[in-house]
Amino acid sequence: MPDPRFFPSGPALPLSEVARRLGVAPVRDPAALICGVAALGSAGPQEITYLEQARHLPDLASCAAGACLVSPALRARAAAQVGPQGPQLLVVADPKAAFMALTAVLHPEPRIPAGRDASALVAASARIDPTASIGPGAVLGAEVTVGARSVIGAHAVLGPGVQIGADCHVHPHATVSHAVLGDRVTLHSHATIGRAGFGFHPGAAGLTRVAQLGRVILHDDVEIGAQSCVDRGTLGDTVIGRGTKIDNLVQIGHNCQIGAQCVIVAQCGLAGSVVLEDGVLLGGQVGVADHRTIGRGARIAAKSGVTRDVPAQETQSGIPARPITLFFRAVARDLRLGRAGKP
Amino acid sequence: MPDPRFFPSGPALPLSEVARRLGVAPVRDPAALICGVAALGSAGPQEITYLEQARHLPDLASCAAGACLVSPALRARAAAQVGPQGPQLLVVADPKAAFMALTAVLHPEPRIPAGRDASALVAASARIDPTASIGPGAVLGAEVTVGARSVIGAHAVLGPGVQIGADCHVHPHATVSHAVLGDRVTLHSHATIGRAGFGFHPGAAGLTRVAQLGRVILHDDVEIGAQSCVDRGTLGDTVIGRGTKIDNLVQIGHNCQIGAQCVIVAQCGLAGSVVLEDGVLLGGQVGVADHRTIGRGARIAAKSGVTRDVPAQETQSGIPARPITLFFRAVARDLRLGRAGKP
Amino acid sequence: MPDPRFFPSGPALPLSEVARRLGVAPVRDPAALICGVAALGSAGPQEITYLEQARHLPDLASCAAGACLVSPALRARAAAQVGPQGPQLLVVADPKAAFMALTAVLHPEPRIPAGRDASALVAASARIDPTASIGPGAVLGAEVTVGARSVIGAHAVLGPGVQIGADCHVHPHATVSHAVLGDRVTLHSHATIGRAGFGFHPGAAGLTRVAQLGRVILHDDVEIGAQSCVDRGTLGDTVIGRGTKIDNLVQIGHNCQIGAQCVIVAQCGLAGSVVLEDGVLLGGQVGVADHRTIGRGARIAAKSGVTRDVPAQETQSGIPARPITLFFRAVARDLRLGRAGKP
Repeated sequence: MPDPRFFPSGPALPLSEVARRLGVAPVRDPAALICGVAALGSAGPQEITYLEQARHLPDLASCAAGACLVSPALRARAAAQVGPQGPQLLVVADPKAAFMALTAVLHPEPRIPAGRDASALVAASARIDPTASIGPGAVLGAEVTVGARSVIGAHAVLGPGVQIGADCHVHPHATVSHAVLGDRVTLHSHATIGRAGFGFHPGAAGLTRVAQLGRVILHDDVEIGAQSCVDRGTLGDTVIGRGTKIDNLVQIGHNCQIGAQCVIVAQCGLAGSVVLEDGVLLGGQVGVADHRTIGRGARIAAKSGVTRDVPAQETQSGIPARPITLFFRAVARDLRLGRAGKP
Repeated sequence: MPDPRFFPSGPALPLSEVARRLGVAPVRDPAALICGVAALGSAGPQEITYLEQARHLPDLASCAAGACLVSPALRARAAAQVGPQGPQLLVVADPKAAFMALTAVLHPEPRIPAGRDASALVAASARIDPTASIGPGAVLGAEVTVGARSVIGAHAVLGPGVQIGADCHVHPHATVSHAVLGDRVTLHSHATIGRAGFGFHPGAAGLTRVAQLGRVILHDDVEIGAQSCVDRGTLGDTVIGRGTKIDNLVQIGHNCQIGAQCVIVAQCGLAGSVVLEDGVLLGGQVGVADHRTIGRGARIAAKSGVTRDVPAQETQSGIPARPITLFFRAVARDLRLGRAGKP
Repeated sequence: MPDPRFFPSGPALPLSEVARRLGVAPVRDPAALICGVAALGSAGPQEITYLEQARHLPDLASCAAGACLVSPALRARAAAQVGPQGPQLLVVADPKAAFMALTAVLHPEPRIPAGRDASALVAASARIDPTASIGPGAVLGAEVTVGARSVIGAHAVLGPGVQIGADCHVHPHATVSHAVLGDRVTLHSHATIGRAGFGFHPGAAGLTRVAQLGRVILHDDVEIGAQSCVDRGTLGDTVIGRGTKIDNLVQIGHNCQIGAQCVIVAQCGLAGSVVLEDGVLLGGQVGVADHRTIGRGARIAAKSGVTRDVPAQETQSGIPARPITLFFRAVARDLRLGRAGKP
């Protein structure tokens, strides 16, 4: 059961109501009360859990949950595991999605009240929707706009002209400048959006900073992790497409063009002017050299270094990155020769 | 044209005045007004652009800019591309430098007014130049000094005794302690300067922190990126030399001695007591083991791991780093054997 | 001598008193005053230093320190180096530990006064020990608890329900939510503890965030570096064991279980549900794939990528990580063939 200090419980629901919400068949004991969600191994009689994979089937025998969501494919084998006092099974097409839907009901996210904290520093010309929430110490510059129901966390700093859409969540300490955010964008703590990128021109007196006159555009449903940086464009914009999710400690250089529904795992670094087409997946700690394009749906294994364009749908690995079969062959050869004691 | 919400325009200039400022010959239509800068592909009739490389010559044919800066070497080929209504060409020795100079005139950086925000918390013993700017919520400890025209951003925290020179820019949320900064130093958001480094001594009760009694010295014109960390020295100082530029998410361990005019790209990590001589270039995500020296002018390819000293002027790559020719040979062999299907 | 602007000196001690505190034999000139600590190469007559390794013995000849701590093993060779006006030698079993103990006396850490800054924003229901210190602009949510003598730095943000034990130090700008901290825990600047981890479920409308209902548990004596992130668990907790030290810019994914007395160097990344048993050492920039276990006392070389479970006590290196002998053999072969000009 989630710690109630951090996750206040919502209403308890009879199992019949749970079943009704999921649109599934009634259950053995429809009056049984469900108060929360929990993992298969730790759930108690007033909690509901779900069976994610067949390899967890044996755990069902000792599962003390009040109910368990299972897929049609695993229903029969699950039923064979569960004892007479075991969890009641609810069969749904996508147990994880159903579990997530119930989580939202049983453990609703705390509502952050609308309005601005007295300690926030909001420019007179900022336009804040009355349903938005502005946290303690937040600093909003001239002409900033914040849309309906958006939450600006404690000490967040939004520079002049920044636009925040509706239902966004800017966590504490994020800093945003020269940026336009769509709706439902999440910025985690300490994210830095809109910094002047790393561009210098060599001259007689050393390196001189190249002015960065572009913006950052974050489309709807983008998420940017804690400590991640998205630098603004030089003359054009740095763009992150709809629904793309970026983890913690990621660097996105100036002028990058990231497509929709990409996933970028923690500590990746994209140099300037990189293009990711839609649906690209980058594993953790990947690096991509400047001006490279990674095609639609390509997947790059963790820790790879991309130095050439990657064709759509291809999976690559290695430094430099190459088709993953070639990577595995090289590793296999290294290990085989090494084990044979051949230097 | 830069978004005027973020980059207010300066004065419009007749092209004759632009030419005069660059010290170049007069032009076809000296009265044409120039209001801003833009990239070759997007510039309009009231904007000036520049031709960076010969491979962009074909783009000149459709370029709608009012004027374009070109190098003497490309002048003739550029003129052949431009139509009678095309951009007027201004021939300058370094088009990019000229473009940067015009940018500073046409899009001057917004002046941040001097003075301290009422919400800043400044110790009575701090000595702040009257021309400096102290942002909202900034915290300045005892005996801090801030030089002329320096800008301390919102919520920046300067610990006791920190010295900031003239014309520095400390962006919002940077934290600085035990540090002395020269002039024209830039710290981006969330930079952490002067943290006690990662030093522990094993004992009966586990690891004990080793006191870190040194400082961080940042010389003139140093730039430190967002989320980057420079740990202070143990008994001596951690030093970053004049004009060195450090990108985002970089870790500089305690006691490092970084020379002048180095460039350290995002996500590099330098362990303790590393020495970089002047003019070293580290590509992104490079790691350098403790106590290693990288000689003057050496270049380390992205994602390399430096485990031995690197001679001056050498280019290395790989984990462990080696002369780049050896790295490329190993990669070529891996790829050749892999494509031949040899495991 | 440490810069007195940053490290105020404590009392000067006669060398007899220094010797008494270390429980060692009296010295040549017991009345000599010792005012501070310094490195062997820079110490002056009123400072004490220590000899760390035999390779520094030659430096003793020119050492101007008033006194030097040496181990019994090096005593005779040290005495042979030191001239008649050279440093007085104090023989102790662990010179570095003795040096650390003297450092704490001669350069005591500045006491941060108890109490809360007037600009801190503390919820009425928070329970703050009267000996704790709450810095300027710190934000403490409902039901937060802070133990005796703990220091909460400027602008730190502690979300609702967060528990902080005794003698903790939360540096400026750290953000903490959904977390329970033991005693003597240190969080450096900009650390992000308790973020909702990177979990998404694919659906018709793209990726949907999976609610993260777990916590972060940091046991006694844990240290988390600047800019490091520890994501909270999904249904269970993310746990960091007693005495584990984590450097800057490290990512710890949701549900990780880190044992006691581990050391994790800067820029490492642990994906979700990684297990580190006690005493594991990860060099800088290591990555560990999700659900992997690294056995007790294992050591992973910098920049490695762990893709399989690692047995206890084993040392591994490489991407993917393998026993270090195999790694070195592969590197040696690459270099040998490369130098021979064989592609």
